[in-house]
Amino acid sequence: MIKTRFAVFGGGSWATAIVKMLTENSDKITWYMRSSDAIAYLQTEKHNPNYLRSVEFNIDQLQLTDDINKAVEHADILIFAIPSAFLGSELEKLKVTLADKIIFSAIKGIVPETGLIVGEHFHETYNIPFENIGVITGPCHAEEVALERLSYLTIACADVAKAELVAENLRSAYIKTKISKDIIGTEYAAMLKNIYAIAAGIAHGLGYGDNFQSVLMSNAIREMKRFTKRIHKIDRNINDSAYLGDLLVTGYSTFSRNRMFGNMIGKGYTVKSAQMEMSMVAEGYYATKSAFEIKSKFEKKVKTPIINAVYAVLYEGKNPKSVFAKLTEKID
Amino acid sequence: MIKTRFAVFGGGSWATAIVKMLTENSDKITWYMRSSDAIAYLQTEKHNPNYLRSVEFNIDQLQLTDDINKAVEHADILIFAIPSAFLGSELEKLKVTLADKIIFSAIKGIVPETGLIVGEHFHETYNIPFENIGVITGPCHAEEVALERLSYLTIACADVAKAELVAENLRSAYIKTKISKDIIGTEYAAMLKNIYAIAAGIAHGLGYGDNFQSVLMSNAIREMKRFTKRIHKIDRNINDSAYLGDLLVTGYSTFSRNRMFGNMIGKGYTVKSAQMEMSMVAEGYYATKSAFEIKSKFEKKVKTPIINAVYAVLYEGKNPKSVFAKLTEKID
Repeated sequence: MIKTRFAVFGGGSWATAIVKMLTENSDKITWYMRSSDAIAYLQTEKHNPNYLRSVEFNIDQLQLTDDINKAVEHADILIFAIPSAFLGSELEKLKVTLADKIIFSAIKGIVPETGLIVGEHFHETYNIPFENIGVITGPCHAEEVALERLSYLTIACADVAKAELVAENLRSAYIKTKISKDIIGTEYAAMLKNIYAIAAGIAHGLGYGDNFQSVLMSNAIREMKRFTKRIHKIDRNINDSAYLGDLLVTGYSTFSRNRMFGNMIGKGYTVKSAQMEMSMVAEGYYATKSAFEIKSKFEKKVKTPIINAVYAVLYEGKNPKSVFAKLTEKID
Repeated sequence: MIKTRFAVFGGGSWATAIVKMLTENSDKITWYMRSSDAIAYLQTEKHNPNYLRSVEFNIDQLQLTDDINKAVEHADILIFAIPSAFLGSELEKLKVTLADKIIFSAIKGIVPETGLIVGEHFHETYNIPFENIGVITGPCHAEEVALERLSYLTIACADVAKAELVAENLRSAYIKTKISKDIIGTEYAAMLKNIYAIAAGIAHGLGYGDNFQSVLMSNAIREMKRFTKRIHKIDRNINDSAYLGDLLVTGYSTFSRNRMFGNMIGKGYTVKSAQMEMSMVAEGYYATKSAFEIKSKFEKKVKTPIINAVYAVLYEGKNPKSVFAKLTEKID
């Protein structure tokens, strides 16, 4: 039997939301965050100083640590919710082995150092077998978990028993879970949707309206279907919540960092100034480069007009207005 | 060769938007509205007194009439944009024949008298052959057409040449068109999406958040796929703009009458008081009854948990809160 000692890695809003979900079912959760100040604050004030401040924890349920090695040792199931851009440098601190650990990614993005999605990164870099790798995906704004608003998560793992085990521990009155075997597709979908959210933001910034947004999203889901099918062909309904739902909750959210980032670019900010203004890098920025490079290597080409357009704006210095004018001719 | 004298029937915002689109391409458009006051106003003030007031017409391009028979006689292609609830009584005024006319429906809904979608109604009641019947569908808010914001229309007709002819006359710098043969599917989709918009409104009114809305929409499109497939099996990508796009532009719009109607019910209004408050009947109200009756007659059952839930609230006096609590168990 698999023991179920959980460790959550990350100090952001999504990590905080996952810890909250686990506390509904587990007596003790190990929670790693880099910042010892945040840990000290959490221990006295009972909430994360920076994210989801309304969530009050029972500190007795938490084993807080800023030592990633201790956190790994204390747990059997590791849930990573560190932004993909920082995952590599965090994992460099590892001295203990990850062998025999079950690793779930709650990260939406590409690890810049390897250009791989998180599951693949653990598989390639740490020799974790795919049956010990899983994905936790939305559609889910962490902020709504904080408010205990009903949300549906998809838990994907090639080994269904492990997906079910994690699902059991996340489920509660306000969290419903669905099991999937499609770790590759769900993870790519979660990453691609951030690119489409940037596209939605650019379009909004340029003055396109709701009619166009709905056409853009309808084209985005078809593009996501083609892309994920080429990456990993499997029986998958792209309209399931983990794919379409996740696209919609991000693409239609005015709070999405990716959409905001796109919006600023549509309004005339340069990529650099938009990044500086946001003080936080939108994950879709890296995802765009990775997705573009991945699809450029496909032997049989896949039509990805939206990824191409966002890439042209973010990485080729093209004028968003003319790039999107051309995009409007390519979608329907 | 088909002549292209157009007549538009209706005085609302969608009729006004269609006339505007046609004026980009035609010198003379016949425009029927019931209200002679509105016509007199339009003739002097150059805009519709009640809808899309920012759209200024060149009156020389319009042949305005409150005589439906004259309008029919003056045109070869008739575009109906009268709310489905009033279509029957308007058509009762007809003394001239509809034979040899090409009839396009820009109406989203069911004709209450016959329980048929508009295309079927013209076919059954007026013996119009299906190759002379077409559908104009969005995703398209009329308000954005008024602002000349880029919008995509789908023009469906079994006879592709006729669809192309209508498309040609609607296309402009801000309108793109796509041709389809699926008049049944597009029309049912346009009607079903109003039911899903009511569901979205009820959920919002009850306090469900964005995470749930995205799951609801992801289930709605799957339900729409099952329903339209059972009605008319044809090679159709439910993620095309005419289906998914149309669902999204309505389901995510806070201006949608159907969503607003649902929202009031979720907030505790009775169906009757919500209707009185809105002074205008949301088309999804009738669509819910029709869709429920249609699906109840399917020999092989189709899973329609969302239609069932909205029906239970609107027609069986069930408590929205408990109906939606049950719905959350049936969707994923």
